[in-house]
Amino acid sequence: MAFFPASLEKLIDRFASLPGIGRKSAQRLAFHVLALPDDEANAFADTIREAKQSVHCCRICQNLTEGEICSICASDRRDKSVICVVSEPRDVLSIERGREYNGSYHVLHGVLSPMNHVGPDDIRIKELLHRVAEEPVEEVIMATNPDTEGEATAMYLSRLLKPFEIKVTRLAYGIPVGSNLEFADDATLNRAIEGRTEM
Amino acid sequence: MAFFPASLEKLIDRFASLPGIGRKSAQRLAFHVLALPDDEANAFADTIREAKQSVHCCRICQNLTEGEICSICASDRRDKSVICVVSEPRDVLSIERGREYNGSYHVLHGVLSPMNHVGPDDIRIKELLHRVAEEPVEEVIMATNPDTEGEATAMYLSRLLKPFEIKVTRLAYGIPVGSNLEFADDATLNRAIEGRTEM
Repeated sequence: MAFFPASLEKLIDRFASLPGIGRKSAQRLAFHVLALPDDEANAFADTIREAKQSVHCCRICQNLTEGEICSICASDRRDKSVICVVSEPRDVLSIERGREYNGSYHVLHGVLSPMNHVGPDDIRIKELLHRVAEEPVEEVIMATNPDTEGEATAMYLSRLLKPFEIKVTRLAYGIPVGSNLEFADDATLNRAIEGRTEM
Repeated sequence: MAFFPASLEKLIDRFASLPGIGRKSAQRLAFHVLALPDDEANAFADTIREAKQSVHCCRICQNLTEGEICSICASDRRDKSVICVVSEPRDVLSIERGREYNGSYHVLHGVLSPMNHVGPDDIRIKELLHRVAEEPVEEVIMATNPDTEGEATAMYLSRLLKPFEIKVTRLAYGIPVGSNLEFADDATLNRAIEGRTEM
């Protein structure tokens, strides 16, 4: 039986350890990298090292940044009295894409998940409470995902924030703009009816 | 607008440059790598460098190996009088998986593709001709893919090999074992009828 050379097998293993990459895809990626010119393959390796070295969390909002604080926290055009709590850095990008929200963020880096042994100390909750205690925060918007864990995390946080007597809100549920009632699931439709607004 | 830090963007770009990885997947992969412990992320980078440094082509069959010649070419239990010509290293693995074939291989590292400017000098044809001329080869099996480019490459090679007066064969076409006639396409069914064998 012929297998791949050991260092190629190792590279395939690395790629296969990434989320959403199966064995076959990992092989294809490894072959692609091996077929790259030397300098490009090495640049790939360097990019991993560099990103890992220079990217860390913003001291204030915990979003990823290369400086001490991120561009949003550093900007004086953003409203620091509103904090939008999201679970992952990519969620910041999603909300920024809308170009509507002008407050600040707080990235939890996860959600509470007893099944996966993620408890309150494993995500950036302490840092959020610290901000609310120290800064003149008026509103915290819970923008975790509308799934079980995201909901539970939002509920847990809203209870923790109660003593601070600030406004704690949750993203609205409802039918997506431009979609079709026919394709909306029951839970979403029910939420859309509950949350109906006057015209 | 908040974007990702520059070195994270660079890492996302790298992943997005891999085959079959879109922008969203690249983001997910980059975030995953950033979330790895330092030593694991660096090990990933090292694995790329090492694989790129130590893996090269077997001097004889052009398959990927870490030594001067690969384990199949080095084995005295393999029949060197038969050469199975494949387009990619992964095809060797596919055939080896069948545990039936006991000859040697020749990896072309591509197929002829005028559309993509891949000509006879861009794939390992010279090396194959050299082997056939120098070694006591009795049969060359064309095992390129049964698509247009694979066919054309097989045809081209078989013409080049004609002067050597050896047997040149092609993998059989037909219905896949365990499949259903209902799902076989017309071309495959026609080939299966043409290539019918006596029972």
